[in-house]
Amino acid sequence: MTRIVALCGGVGGAKLAYGLSRLLPPEDLAIIVNTGDDFEHLGLLICPDLDTVTYTLAELDNTAQGWGREAETLGVMNELQRLGEDSWFLLGDKDIALHLMRRQMRDAGVPLTEITRCVADRFGISARMLPMSDDPVRTHISTEEGVLAFQEYFVRRRCEPRVTALSFDGAARATSTAEIRAALRDPALTGIILCPSNPYLSIAPILAITEIRDALVTRRVPALAVSPIIGGQALKGPAAKMMAELGSPVSSLAVARHYGKLIDALLIDEVDHELIAARTEMDPALHVEKTVMKTREDRIGLARACLALLGTMCRR
Amino acid sequence: MTRIVALCGGVGGAKLAYGLSRLLPPEDLAIIVNTGDDFEHLGLLICPDLDTVTYTLAELDNTAQGWGREAETLGVMNELQRLGEDSWFLLGDKDIALHLMRRQMRDAGVPLTEITRCVADRFGISARMLPMSDDPVRTHISTEEGVLAFQEYFVRRRCEPRVTALSFDGAARATSTAEIRAALRDPALTGIILCPSNPYLSIAPILAITEIRDALVTRRVPALAVSPIIGGQALKGPAAKMMAELGSPVSSLAVARHYGKLIDALLIDEVDHELIAARTEMDPALHVEKTVMKTREDRIGLARACLALLGTMCRR
Repeated sequence: MTRIVALCGGVGGAKLAYGLSRLLPPEDLAIIVNTGDDFEHLGLLICPDLDTVTYTLAELDNTAQGWGREAETLGVMNELQRLGEDSWFLLGDKDIALHLMRRQMRDAGVPLTEITRCVADRFGISARMLPMSDDPVRTHISTEEGVLAFQEYFVRRRCEPRVTALSFDGAARATSTAEIRAALRDPALTGIILCPSNPYLSIAPILAITEIRDALVTRRVPALAVSPIIGGQALKGPAAKMMAELGSPVSSLAVARHYGKLIDALLIDEVDHELIAARTEMDPALHVEKTVMKTREDRIGLARACLALLGTMCRR
Repeated sequence: MTRIVALCGGVGGAKLAYGLSRLLPPEDLAIIVNTGDDFEHLGLLICPDLDTVTYTLAELDNTAQGWGREAETLGVMNELQRLGEDSWFLLGDKDIALHLMRRQMRDAGVPLTEITRCVADRFGISARMLPMSDDPVRTHISTEEGVLAFQEYFVRRRCEPRVTALSFDGAARATSTAEIRAALRDPALTGIILCPSNPYLSIAPILAITEIRDALVTRRVPALAVSPIIGGQALKGPAAKMMAELGSPVSSLAVARHYGKLIDALLIDEVDHELIAARTEMDPALHVEKTVMKTREDRIGLARACLALLGTMCRR
């Protein structure tokens, strides 16, 4: 009985997903996770957003660093570097253990949804993490220096090249999964939450899966997004820089307009309360909340606010 | 210009190979390494003997433990264990770095000989390490408890089951390599050394490659083996136990008779000097030497003794 579906990418989204997972019984929550950042590296299949959500839900996330595992070591990476292998993408030893496990399952032909269920199980996570598709979708960033694969742009080039466009290779052919279809069509569904992940890099690939976008367009339940932009800046990552490069104002109101009719309301941070006055009738509703999640309690607090707000909203 | 060809398996053989590599210019020495122990585990291709030779030649071997790397860590393994994965085969983080590197090259279709050359290069090893074949050969141990893959027998079962027979799956179809053929046919060749590795588990798979066995049978240069049996015991590993189980006396004389006409002489340890009296005219010559290699100097000392002895021998 899925009551809440959350769409999320990495860090910020994972934090809200964590809060939701602490408030809702496992069967009530389905978390659809971006896989556009996934890539093959050193012969491993790396799923950055799925991993971040996994580590975060299991309370094994490195909260200081903002990605990866707590108490991580670099035994393999240091040796790879000594041996002259690519070392621009930092992989911790615990991380590699997970990638090895996943690689084996994939070599055995297990779909990513099933692999993810198994990983969740091993990590003691009862909430449902659902990869947006079992088909490969790969985010490519068109920049003034050429087209870059996501991690090339994000990690190797540290988001420096100016972005001109984004594409999600494979998304047009990709289907959603039986698990996601069931969740989005569940008669018990009461709301959809777009987590505060990068709208262009993390949420857009999910919405590029036609079945998921259609489900949002034709929804009978309210959809709420949480803005990742606070005071004209992103807390983490290139969202603000990318919005500017793509010709958008950098504000939560622009985020609301970006999502448009896919959402009914946007939660914005307290510091941006004056945006409410700038909102027009055409825009999704804006609601003010404390959206910065520094502690695990903050995550639960924001999740509670989201659920409360959804409870007051009814679909037009 | 290959002057010396050495056949070797893991630990003991690798030590003598190290000694030889310190005495001979790289072009003079070709080390043919057993790959019968190779196996796929955790999605990695593990080549225990090639790795031991690599680490030993690079002076990165764990001399206290007798296998693996010095100053090794277990970050990945501990996490795999926590996640419920197979942990009976211990893989260090540095080890895993090498396996990841090799896996990638293999996925790209690079033959093992070429992979090994590349690995040697990364480890700063100039001596030639040549896998006995680029074709897969897998040692299987028939025991009273059924047929076991080599590592199942060796590591998981700690050599406990009684051995009834050995087979080297794939050996009949496997060919040697261009590099090994060139080395064994080199007009500059002056001798062949069978290192003190397990004759049944480490040297036999190499000799199961028809081309290599034929080259030994038809050799024009002397062949010398070093016995891994000292005072009726193996310094390490199951050689003695296995000889007894296969119905052979456990002695260096039995090793000499096992190799038979494939060698011209066997170097035995000082403690076994009385075996010389038991030797018959049909057996290979026996020569006494200090064969225990505790230090790196011991390895070089034994290698010097082998080369000196080969220098005095001429092929019948």
